[in-house]
Amino acid sequence: MAHLPTVLDVGRIAGVSRQTVSNVINTPDIVKPETRERVEAAIAQLGYRPHASARRLRTQKSSTLGIRLDPMANGISGAVLDRFLHAVTEQADRRGLRVMLFTADSPEDEIEQFARMRDGADVDAFILTSTFYRDPRTEWLIANGVPFVTFGRPWGIDDMNDPRHLWVDVDGWSGVHQATEHLLGTGIRHIAYLGWPSPSGTGDDRRRGWREAMVTRSHLSELELDALAMVAEDGVGNGRAAVEALRATGTPVEAIVCASDSLALGAALAVGADIPVIGYDNTPVAEAVGLSSVEQPLDEVAAGVLELLMGPTGADVLDRDAAAGVPRHRLVTPRLVVRERSTLL
Amino acid sequence: MAHLPTVLDVGRIAGVSRQTVSNVINTPDIVKPETRERVEAAIAQLGYRPHASARRLRTQKSSTLGIRLDPMANGISGAVLDRFLHAVTEQADRRGLRVMLFTADSPEDEIEQFARMRDGADVDAFILTSTFYRDPRTEWLIANGVPFVTFGRPWGIDDMNDPRHLWVDVDGWSGVHQATEHLLGTGIRHIAYLGWPSPSGTGDDRRRGWREAMVTRSHLSELELDALAMVAEDGVGNGRAAVEALRATGTPVEAIVCASDSLALGAALAVGADIPVIGYDNTPVAEAVGLSSVEQPLDEVAAGVLELLMGPTGADVLDRDAAAGVPRHRLVTPRLVVRERSTLL
Repeated sequence: MAHLPTVLDVGRIAGVSRQTVSNVINTPDIVKPETRERVEAAIAQLGYRPHASARRLRTQKSSTLGIRLDPMANGISGAVLDRFLHAVTEQADRRGLRVMLFTADSPEDEIEQFARMRDGADVDAFILTSTFYRDPRTEWLIANGVPFVTFGRPWGIDDMNDPRHLWVDVDGWSGVHQATEHLLGTGIRHIAYLGWPSPSGTGDDRRRGWREAMVTRSHLSELELDALAMVAEDGVGNGRAAVEALRATGTPVEAIVCASDSLALGAALAVGADIPVIGYDNTPVAEAVGLSSVEQPLDEVAAGVLELLMGPTGADVLDRDAAAGVPRHRLVTPRLVVRERSTLL
Repeated sequence: MAHLPTVLDVGRIAGVSRQTVSNVINTPDIVKPETRERVEAAIAQLGYRPHASARRLRTQKSSTLGIRLDPMANGISGAVLDRFLHAVTEQADRRGLRVMLFTADSPEDEIEQFARMRDGADVDAFILTSTFYRDPRTEWLIANGVPFVTFGRPWGIDDMNDPRHLWVDVDGWSGVHQATEHLLGTGIRHIAYLGWPSPSGTGDDRRRGWREAMVTRSHLSELELDALAMVAEDGVGNGRAAVEALRATGTPVEAIVCASDSLALGAALAVGADIPVIGYDNTPVAEAVGLSSVEQPLDEVAAGVLELLMGPTGADVLDRDAAAGVPRHRLVTPRLVVRERSTLL
């Protein structure tokens, strides 16, 4: 084919002007029925399709969602956002939307990219990941009226219920609470927790899940609980060192719940196969070495993100009205994956 | 801001028609210098930017690359294509290009998506992954004159040097050859190979890397080599079973080179820490459990893909002319990552 059929080709065959063709496509009511039929026949004959860019100009819709691709994160847990990207792309495809990727070096750089894509009508809405307290990105998007949803709640007290901030998150409190309850149910009480230094929105939330389960059922004193609460930056080596240090104090430890699979692998290396260790994220590493872990249901998160933007039904373009009756945020419950015993340890 | 400045706003401030503004932007040579200056001042004053969709209509360029996001692959090795996607997105950003994701259920479905995006001028070129012999996708793209590069060589004999098929690949032969040479260099000879069933373009290529290194330096007979060549579908359990079956025959095995980290983990579980095992892909799992592995340099692959499409310099749009002098394919050499001993085994 030499070239795609254009509006001029259609007009030539139908014997009408370019403007008339355009009227048939955009405002058919103002065209005489017999002219309309002639033009429609020419459109069918040529297989003419209005150009996507022209459509975009007309509708101001690109049917595209923008997502910043984070730099490659640490090896073990980094795949979570990639899995989320897969889930979003597949579900967006089913709704007739595509995903546009971009990168940014900083929140400020990301805001510049938002502005550029907004100005160019390249995307209809943004999906943000890795939110943090007083995130300038969401402030900018709200101030500029650009539709967005975050995977991750806003961590401030005031903005959690801000109706202008749509968000979906996984209930980390529940994930760690389930893990701790599962261990308490096996009859043990000295369950340690290994998590990230405070303040960390995600980390503090997970730690509370352990603490509250322990306060309710372990019958340990506050002092004993404090002794079982370990802190380490994420990483296999850090996890291992923290657990070895705790054990050197003589504190009894019957199991360990961790804020990540990296820390859990480190903990498992420190204690061997006899003491249960539960990680978080159910990564390929946890699966490969046979560690129990908390799984984030990323398909549900992706479904929630799209429903908040577009409404529950399969609308094929962003439809804010359809989404109007939908709650403004959604907290998804993770599930504990219990593995009997490490295959490696 | 009530609305973005339009060409009409610029014309009003400069006291000229919409067409004159358009001429200043698109064909400044035909506009009188003093008019041009007035319009340029109005453009600067308003911060007017030509609409991306309008630009796209004019130039037929979207500055966008299309990539099909594969369904989530198996846990251990699946991250390779995600790492490639990160590398492409980051390097494309530096060249002013974005990445558009889509999904497809089959090669035929993928071809339909190509056609749709080509018709809509949504993307300038496609990057394909997971190529196979007689791939109908590349045939379609060539037949329709759509620019593309594949990560993965075409596996047919005739089409490997087809100048219409641009490709970048990692030299799997070399990766496995290096791994085998490394082990031969430690003074051992009974090095087994664990790889996928034939025919598999990638798999057969890797297996040849082992075989040719062994033929040259192991002094084993063809029969002995055949006995050391194991076949298994990818997976930890399959790898473990294949190695256990080989050892049950009494064949001496001093080391094992594998086509993937999944197979390598299975092999390592079968033989314990005393027999060296080398995997392929240097996944987070290999790093976490301390397995040696062959690393694919995905930054180099991404750089090669963009250079084949756009030329070596930082052109900010797809420039086929700049790419004209560049070779039509590139084979990137992987590197062996040697880890002293598994931390887990």
